[in-house]
Amino acid sequence: MAVALNLKSAPGTALHRKIYQEWREGILSGRFRRGERVPSTRDLAATLGIARSTVTTAYEQLTAEGYFESARGSGTFVCRELPETLLHARRPATASRAAESPVAAEPIRLSRYASELSDPRLLQPPVPAGWLRLSHWRPDLDHFPWAIWHRLMKRHLGSSATHLFDYADSPAGHEPLRREITAYLARSRAVNCSPDQVVVVNGSQQGLDLCTRILIDRGDEVALENPGYQGARQIFQAFGARLTAAAMDSDGVIPASLSPKARLVYVTPSHQFPTGVSMSVARRLELIEWARRHGAVIIEDDYDSEYRYSGAPLPAMQGLAKGVPVFYIGTFSKVMFPGMRIGYVIVPPALAGVFQRVKWLADRQTPLLEQAALADFLREGHLERHTRKMRRVYGRRREVMVASVSKYFGSKAQVLGDEAGMHALVRFEDDGVAARAVANRVQLASSEGYYQGEAPKNEFVFGFSCVTESQLREAIRRLATHT
Amino acid sequence: MAVALNLKSAPGTALHRKIYQEWREGILSGRFRRGERVPSTRDLAATLGIARSTVTTAYEQLTAEGYFESARGSGTFVCRELPETLLHARRPATASRAAESPVAAEPIRLSRYASELSDPRLLQPPVPAGWLRLSHWRPDLDHFPWAIWHRLMKRHLGSSATHLFDYADSPAGHEPLRREITAYLARSRAVNCSPDQVVVVNGSQQGLDLCTRILIDRGDEVALENPGYQGARQIFQAFGARLTAAAMDSDGVIPASLSPKARLVYVTPSHQFPTGVSMSVARRLELIEWARRHGAVIIEDDYDSEYRYSGAPLPAMQGLAKGVPVFYIGTFSKVMFPGMRIGYVIVPPALAGVFQRVKWLADRQTPLLEQAALADFLREGHLERHTRKMRRVYGRRREVMVASVSKYFGSKAQVLGDEAGMHALVRFEDDGVAARAVANRVQLASSEGYYQGEAPKNEFVFGFSCVTESQLREAIRRLATHT
Repeated sequence: MAVALNLKSAPGTALHRKIYQEWREGILSGRFRRGERVPSTRDLAATLGIARSTVTTAYEQLTAEGYFESARGSGTFVCRELPETLLHARRPATASRAAESPVAAEPIRLSRYASELSDPRLLQPPVPAGWLRLSHWRPDLDHFPWAIWHRLMKRHLGSSATHLFDYADSPAGHEPLRREITAYLARSRAVNCSPDQVVVVNGSQQGLDLCTRILIDRGDEVALENPGYQGARQIFQAFGARLTAAAMDSDGVIPASLSPKARLVYVTPSHQFPTGVSMSVARRLELIEWARRHGAVIIEDDYDSEYRYSGAPLPAMQGLAKGVPVFYIGTFSKVMFPGMRIGYVIVPPALAGVFQRVKWLADRQTPLLEQAALADFLREGHLERHTRKMRRVYGRRREVMVASVSKYFGSKAQVLGDEAGMHALVRFEDDGVAARAVANRVQLASSEGYYQGEAPKNEFVFGFSCVTESQLREAIRRLATHT
Repeated sequence: MAVALNLKSAPGTALHRKIYQEWREGILSGRFRRGERVPSTRDLAATLGIARSTVTTAYEQLTAEGYFESARGSGTFVCRELPETLLHARRPATASRAAESPVAAEPIRLSRYASELSDPRLLQPPVPAGWLRLSHWRPDLDHFPWAIWHRLMKRHLGSSATHLFDYADSPAGHEPLRREITAYLARSRAVNCSPDQVVVVNGSQQGLDLCTRILIDRGDEVALENPGYQGARQIFQAFGARLTAAAMDSDGVIPASLSPKARLVYVTPSHQFPTGVSMSVARRLELIEWARRHGAVIIEDDYDSEYRYSGAPLPAMQGLAKGVPVFYIGTFSKVMFPGMRIGYVIVPPALAGVFQRVKWLADRQTPLLEQAALADFLREGHLERHTRKMRRVYGRRREVMVASVSKYFGSKAQVLGDEAGMHALVRFEDDGVAARAVANRVQLASSEGYYQGEAPKNEFVFGFSCVTESQLREAIRRLATHT
């Protein structure tokens, strides 16, 4: 162990005394942990370039005072049990350190970016123990084929080649995965791209982040569905975009409602977040035409397009938009598991190079090992098999959710949106729902935060993907139960 | 397989004809791959909500024309061998598509951020086959204890708990790893922090990116060592900082040379990049005092502090700076392997919360599986053992490099900087070095790109960590060889 001791302070103090003091202070402040091995006197003397006897003198004092203990034949250690008197000695030191700590100094001026993130409620609070949650739309991890995933990971871990542990050939990601993503999107989403347009990112949030950096200057106008996805709004806002709200009807965003100055239009056409509306093909074509006329760029966030419980999959706007730049964003964290931090952006061909450099400057590359395993997972058909299975599981859960809302609330509640995704918007004509949720220990997510401007009352985003059918029935029963 | 077919276009066309056309166009454009299985007529009819006979009619035509082929008992596939005539038919389609492609459309206006990244040379070119490289300062992967790493990864992969595959409890990272990092930095670098101040990031580049977002507005002044690390300069510049150059001597940055308006000072005190100078403790204290007087923030980038081949480790500025905010950045990609995309930022306590939210907005979290394996790697002492070993290996390589430069160039070359790190700056009094490198197939990295303003001639950054001793001797011999 190389130990950094500051021996330059306090000139005039004997060297063995300085060594003693550095260790003592380090032990009392917790810098060195109890029971931890300390370097031998020979090693420390060699490292510091001083006589071994000087170190020995210091160690003897530390041992005598109970800071160090020796175990015969196995070396010297920081004492596990510090004597009472030492612990007393600690208190004033801690207090004076606290007074000098950076917290007490004058506040640090934050950037405008960071000022947009001053609210700690940005992070979702944990679900209290014993509560049922309708507030999450995560994949159900109990149904994931873990054995297959572990096997694929081990296959690449065990390989003798080290290229998966080195820098990537390209910041755009692992070539075999980019090819598989291209083929997967072509057949399932009618996305029209070459592997050169695929940039692998750490989930769709990083995809949004990189798109914003490449497209948006402070003051630029961005049009967002209203209500819309907070993760996108927050990142646009932090980078200083001026947000404008786009109105929606049952076909999706209404192009005529878009600000003509919007430089970027952000949409979730497969399954609008949070309303659940799927944008019709006619509307998609209209929106593309609007973007062409106004020279705008489209971000198509297809975060959970795999889950559609009725009707045919709709073709992605990316494949319909000829001559209009579309950044198509997708992720595997919804269809596989959230810890899978792999998503992708399909970039217009002319911007593939600069997008790769933006990714490279942000964090060099997404880890390769998981990318290699994921390429196999796609190629061997596991993803499509798993998606088919989860479509049935989530589809049934959605039915149970709808049936329970109807059973307990009748005409006093309405489930909005298409039969798709992992969540639905539910609107109540009942002012007591939120209070009963708290009283009966059900965590709800209000839709309020998703709206720009005024939000409807008593409207919630119900996540049905990570609760069982019986939990769904029970949670909704509780919402209707007066205690 | 769910296939997205657009059946809404061309009203008036018979449905079976539309299905035929979508498949045909998809096969010719490469959207559907040769040999790929197609859904059964029953499945496709059910998905599209149309009569099965309509699908059958389309499939029969596709098979008759050679787009589809059937394998008895195992389904229908896109034909592996497309007939010559079909391939001819493809050409005009591609050409007309190209004319409509986004590339041909008017150029997309990029943000100021992206404009800073317009130069493709930002990415290092690959080393041509057969060349020796002195241009890389990467860890030598041949010496890494892969068996141990694989075992630790498999330990967590095989665990029945799924929490490593879910969202993290905190965007700051895996709690056990944050504790291990705290202890490791306390004992080896005299960094003084609690686990609450540790934010795990995807390598030090993301650490820099997040620090910049939180601290810098467009137009803010940032002081950088000159010459200095490009990865930092590029990110500050992309976010619109005004860069000012800090002068250095053999003790490190000279505080008197700093612009008094600098809001942020970026330094690499352990082993300055690229000069290799280690900042003396006295100079560290002076710089801290300067920052206190000017209300500036310090970023201490300790990217390769583990490698010091003579003298004792110097204590980090983070631990010396009382009352001055220091963001301390480190990474495991240099000391372990580059594919390990895990680094950390030690954040001033008052900013830990907002920094976590900045990380969360950027990409939610760094993958947990590797974090869990890394925590074990640290706790079980493998990192310190590996570092000790590599210190010997790299130390010897540095000696060989110095001896070879002296042997072949004598007083015509000078190796600058301390005995540390994975690279050294080498200055030649010889205008022919670069040309002979190319002629003799040695890749060199000029120091030019690391300077703000004028750079010295014939100065190169020699990486000695990922070339063997004999390769080093040979490469330097070649630099001196006239062909």
